[in-house]
Amino acid sequence: MVGKSQIKFIKSLLQKKYRNQYGMFVVEGLKTVQELLDSNFEAHIIYTVGDVLDNAEHINTELVSEQELKRLSNLKSPNKVLGVFKFPKEKPVDQQGWVLALDDVRDPGNLGTIIRLCDWFGIQHLACSNNTVDCFNPKVLQATMGSITRVNIVYTDLVQFINESSLSVYGTFMDGDNVHTTSLPQKGILVMGNEANGISSAIEALVEHRISIPQFGDQRTESLNVATATAIFLNEIKRTGS
Amino acid sequence: MVGKSQIKFIKSLLQKKYRNQYGMFVVEGLKTVQELLDSNFEAHIIYTVGDVLDNAEHINTELVSEQELKRLSNLKSPNKVLGVFKFPKEKPVDQQGWVLALDDVRDPGNLGTIIRLCDWFGIQHLACSNNTVDCFNPKVLQATMGSITRVNIVYTDLVQFINESSLSVYGTFMDGDNVHTTSLPQKGILVMGNEANGISSAIEALVEHRISIPQFGDQRTESLNVATATAIFLNEIKRTGS
Repeated sequence: MVGKSQIKFIKSLLQKKYRNQYGMFVVEGLKTVQELLDSNFEAHIIYTVGDVLDNAEHINTELVSEQELKRLSNLKSPNKVLGVFKFPKEKPVDQQGWVLALDDVRDPGNLGTIIRLCDWFGIQHLACSNNTVDCFNPKVLQATMGSITRVNIVYTDLVQFINESSLSVYGTFMDGDNVHTTSLPQKGILVMGNEANGISSAIEALVEHRISIPQFGDQRTESLNVATATAIFLNEIKRTGS
Repeated sequence: MVGKSQIKFIKSLLQKKYRNQYGMFVVEGLKTVQELLDSNFEAHIIYTVGDVLDNAEHINTELVSEQELKRLSNLKSPNKVLGVFKFPKEKPVDQQGWVLALDDVRDPGNLGTIIRLCDWFGIQHLACSNNTVDCFNPKVLQATMGSITRVNIVYTDLVQFINESSLSVYGTFMDGDNVHTTSLPQKGILVMGNEANGISSAIEALVEHRISIPQFGDQRTESLNVATATAIFLNEIKRTGS
């Protein structure tokens, strides 16, 4: 039986403020919850409509009805399982490979897609400015498709982070050098900017190499979306290294 | 004064059936409407809350109040202008460069992003299977950011289209050859498949070259989203040709 206080707690985790206060976040759907259970993430409680999970013997689970799951859920059509997980322990950013840095990326779908791209291309560390959208936002989690378990995401003062790193800093600008003809090293920091404003002036001042994706079509075309541009840059980084 | 029949007409254009019946579609927002006016697209009528458009002297415009625009609009916060445009004349697909072919891409955001990518990379012709989402769907139009005026989009029987073309056919498959080490020609057909099922077996039988984006991360990663994968393949095509 799901009580009012449980519903209130789960709903509060829709807000970043309460996620940070409790150090927990909500994940919905059988596939993603299973993927988190199979990773290093620690479950606080899992609500399930039946015996649908593997490896859940030692997990705090509560059997609920479809109606009860609906009351807890943020989805129109809840999918069998809702899990509350603890924040993972932040790991220090390893400077032995490429690090992706996001300067105020605000759209949850974009961040989710970018996390999935990091996972695909083996980028293990993602440094986000403190104004980048929270990676435990439900819309981000939905878009990551479980990749969140395999990428170390750190929120930080990006200026300080870059200043303290010895890696070369690459930033993406419309007027940058053609990435097709730029020789990229085996490691570095790649900075991607905000959807509307690009890279902020404070970060721009720290960029050592300005790069761009050349445009082949009409000059009036809008710049590429940050997620698609990230896809292309990460592919370029890996094709050089491979 | 906007009458009930006008509202009914505009609202009917939210459905593909009525768009095809009238040969017209709706576009909202000052920027995109202006971009269509500045292109070869022909306006049927433009509703505007003030004198906000350039080059609209010879266009059938109707001044409306903010309230009236809200009654016509499909958006929560309508943006000054709503335009009804006629379908553009389909142009034959020019076989002198790369043609992108979509085999049942269903998500409007993905199609919109892909149209914008074609515009960026100078891919002038997009051949869509008849089950691909309609490019005049309002969500597609919103995601294209005006690129729809610069890409020739044709809905067709894709099997027949490919059979009748003399171009080499490249298809994307998880087990395909690494695109980083594949030499791509100056022209061809690139086929991208459905979000859930990939390329259909009927089209697969016509693919001459199976290519893939190599994966550098964990093997459990979900395959890339069709829009981000298209971004990477179009970049690969153009980096070879450039």
